[in-house]
Amino acid sequence: MQPVTQIDLRNRLNVVLVSPRNPLNIGAAARAMANFGFARLAVVAPFAPHWREARSAVGAPELLQAAAESATLAEAVAPCTLVIGTGTLTYRKPEQRVVALPDLAPLVRQELACGGSIALVFGPEKHGLTREDLSYCRLLVEIPTDAHQPSMNLGQAVAVCLYELAARAFAPELSAAEAALPASSMSPAAASGHLELLAGVVEQTMLAANYSPAPMRDANRHDLRLLLHRLAPSERDTRRILGLFRRILWRLHHLQSSGNRGGSPE
Amino acid sequence: MQPVTQIDLRNRLNVVLVSPRNPLNIGAAARAMANFGFARLAVVAPFAPHWREARSAVGAPELLQAAAESATLAEAVAPCTLVIGTGTLTYRKPEQRVVALPDLAPLVRQELACGGSIALVFGPEKHGLTREDLSYCRLLVEIPTDAHQPSMNLGQAVAVCLYELAARAFAPELSAAEAALPASSMSPAAASGHLELLAGVVEQTMLAANYSPAPMRDANRHDLRLLLHRLAPSERDTRRILGLFRRILWRLHHLQSSGNRGGSPE
Repeated sequence: MQPVTQIDLRNRLNVVLVSPRNPLNIGAAARAMANFGFARLAVVAPFAPHWREARSAVGAPELLQAAAESATLAEAVAPCTLVIGTGTLTYRKPEQRVVALPDLAPLVRQELACGGSIALVFGPEKHGLTREDLSYCRLLVEIPTDAHQPSMNLGQAVAVCLYELAARAFAPELSAAEAALPASSMSPAAASGHLELLAGVVEQTMLAANYSPAPMRDANRHDLRLLLHRLAPSERDTRRILGLFRRILWRLHHLQSSGNRGGSPE
Repeated sequence: MQPVTQIDLRNRLNVVLVSPRNPLNIGAAARAMANFGFARLAVVAPFAPHWREARSAVGAPELLQAAAESATLAEAVAPCTLVIGTGTLTYRKPEQRVVALPDLAPLVRQELACGGSIALVFGPEKHGLTREDLSYCRLLVEIPTDAHQPSMNLGQAVAVCLYELAARAFAPELSAAEAALPASSMSPAAASGHLELLAGVVEQTMLAANYSPAPMRDANRHDLRLLLHRLAPSERDTRRILGLFRRILWRLHHLQSSGNRGGSPE
């Protein structure tokens, strides 16, 4: 097995900015990434068209030029096996596991050690990640801020998270010991995009089975995505479950088209 | 003994910005301070006169209004017992002990536990703290950044340092256990201002004793300040040494004025 270099490792962390409004904050995030040795930036539905020219990206213009742009968060996190949302909990009740930033490093080290890749997702300046955004996340990480003033500047929040992970999850001793483990001992979770594929097939199955009335469908889709990210099945298990649901779906359609409407199968 | 509250404790950390050029960075520092529950800001020789109105101080306008302004770093850190400079070492060879930020918390906890107060000093945006500025510092803390892009934005550097200290030096368990220790078991170092006073008297003594030729005096003053901050004598020891040098100085002047010029005393 090839030894894993620090650059290989750090390229497995993706910083994802959802609908950032101020290009200066995108540039500040890029600068912090360069400071801590990370290079993979994805920008989802940015507000300003010329964000790649942000002057605040001191020392990181190439990083901005190379950043991925996508219309949806689903697309940005599709290749990642551990999607981590960021935010404060002051105004919301989270639906997924919450980890304080000082406790995050062991989880990231473990994901890296078994060959996974990570997305660290930041919401827009004003209101942070939505409930919908968070449904793509297995974990929610919270920077421990003061209850009177929890809302951080976006560029500063990115810097703080990357400092913590660079110092304690990507520390040099990792590459030698943990990251070189054969991937056989543990399997990373399936990539986020594959969970989305599975969620889509399960949802079609629900529809075909008349599982829920139309007004409940959005809520059911949301809960289904949360459930899949919480379970975090491996790639292999995801394929297995997908195969099962495809078979069920095929069967449902087949029965419907042959005129058999005798209730939904158990 | 009164229990030490978190607010009391956090008010023993002073953030000192030396000659910041951009008021938006001062505001960003203030915002990060509010995020992590710190309130004591000192600004030394700011470039822009209207820095207190920086719009970037989201949630922290009172903090900016209450900030101290001084002409010199010596004045800003005078009450502090542990003065910590910040910066990267890429372009300089440090003259004092260097600590990586992830290793700083125990030293700060110890200083807090024995009743000391701390200054965390940040240099100007372009070049950081000067050698002269650093001579007031007992420690130099380094944020572990990438060798290719070590220079951080000022507001982001402040956020990263305060995150680390809030999470690991001011964590709640401190107030109960360490901070309630009777101060008798350890003594904090003398306040920076008292070391300056001592340095001044020692320098006069050097002059009176013809210790060094005029061209060496600046270098000697610099080395003397470094030495005193490195030794970090307690308040009591500082008074004792001060008393000794005052006596020597008096004696030197007395001998000179009585016409006895028979060489400098050993």
